[in-house]
Amino acid sequence: MPVITIDLGTMANKEKKCELVQALTEAASTVTQIPAEKFIVFINEMERDNIGVGGKLLSDIIK
Amino acid sequence: MPVITIDLGTMANKEKKCELVQALTEAASTVTQIPAEKFIVFINEMERDNIGVGGKLLSDIIK
Amino acid sequence: MPVITIDLGTMANKEKKCELVQALTEAASTVTQIPAEKFIVFINEMERDNIGVGGKLLSDIIK
Amino acid sequence: MPVITIDLGTMANKEKKCELVQALTEAASTVTQIPAEKFIVFINEMERDNIGVGGKLLSDIIK
Amino acid sequence: MPVITIDLGTMANKEKKCELVQALTEAASTVTQIPAEKFIVFINEMERDNIGVGGKLLSDIIK
Amino acid sequence: MPVITIDLGTMANKEKKCELVQALTEAASTVTQIPAEKFIVFINEMERDNIGVGGKLLSDIIK
Repeated sequence: MPVITIDLGTMANKEKKCELVQALTEAASTVTQIPAEKFIVFINEMERDNIGVGGKLLSDIIK
Repeated sequence: MPVITIDLGTMANKEKKCELVQALTEAASTVTQIPAEKFIVFINEMERDNIGVGGKLLSDIIK
Repeated sequence: MPVITIDLGTMANKEKKCELVQALTEAASTVTQIPAEKFIVFINEMERDNIGVGGKLLSDIIK
Repeated sequence: MPVITIDLGTMANKEKKCELVQALTEAASTVTQIPAEKFIVFINEMERDNIGVGGKLLSDIIK
Repeated sequence: MPVITIDLGTMANKEKKCELVQALTEAASTVTQIPAEKFIVFINEMERDNIGVGGKLLSDIIK
Repeated sequence: MPVITIDLGTMANKEKKCELVQALTEAASTVTQIPAEKFIVFINEMERDNIGVGGKLLSDIIK
């Protein structure tokens, strides 16, 4: 029962999230040989004001 | 100072969250013999569009 | 498919871990009405040298 | 490529988040001697209804 | 700078970990269009005594 | 009761961990004005075989 968590900026729409869940699950299932049904994925969308890269807010780096 | 994090779908109301925090804390405190005052619980509510199960979005599985 | 993660110091033995998984699952299942079979629990045991409380290592607080 | 995650209550404004990212990155970079550019920080703001302390909701403790 | 964390049982060897990191990164990079160089992956291997599924330890389910 | 988690490679010794806990706690306490006593820090040391950067294992990048 593996759990994959991805922390990233906000995503465009549900279709992209659907693709992401499918792609991560397939990738991990293929390598580990654990059946895809066993995988749980959490997409943890974060505002750019809440992500720091190199000591700066992402919202100040990417405008 | 144990920390319990629960990732799950969105919860109905504050009363349920209150019950959940109490129940998890009591359960863990009883087993570990660590006083309940020491426990921190984070309820991480997630949209069904952001949870994948078996490679599909939960929002497409439960309608 | 909720996921419960508990971060705490190292535990005594497998029996205690077994009790902890059972107690956390039952507690959360009862409150949320989600069947116990759906829950995943991760016990994240950490050395006391790797836990800080109030700016000090737990290994220096509890001797 | 260290990743620092801070789970806390909601923050006042972007300026405070900016300061927090900078302060955490500098602190960790200084101690570990890993360059600041390599650090990622996630500020995970949580509602007081979703934080439990000692078995009670933070929203019921701090009013 | 997305971060992917995968919590799962212990893995066989370094080759498998290498494949897993590559597969997860490619999958997420393709969907999100974020360059692969930006991704960080953490493989969080856990003992079967520390994973609970449906209220039971994984070490008691898979023998 | 904020919780700071830092995921990074293995650290040299207990003295460095002690400094890290102290530095992160002070940094976050100063910015948030939350007393240092309230902070919990988890140092999550990971093997270089378990960290991926840009699709490659850190153990293959830094030798």
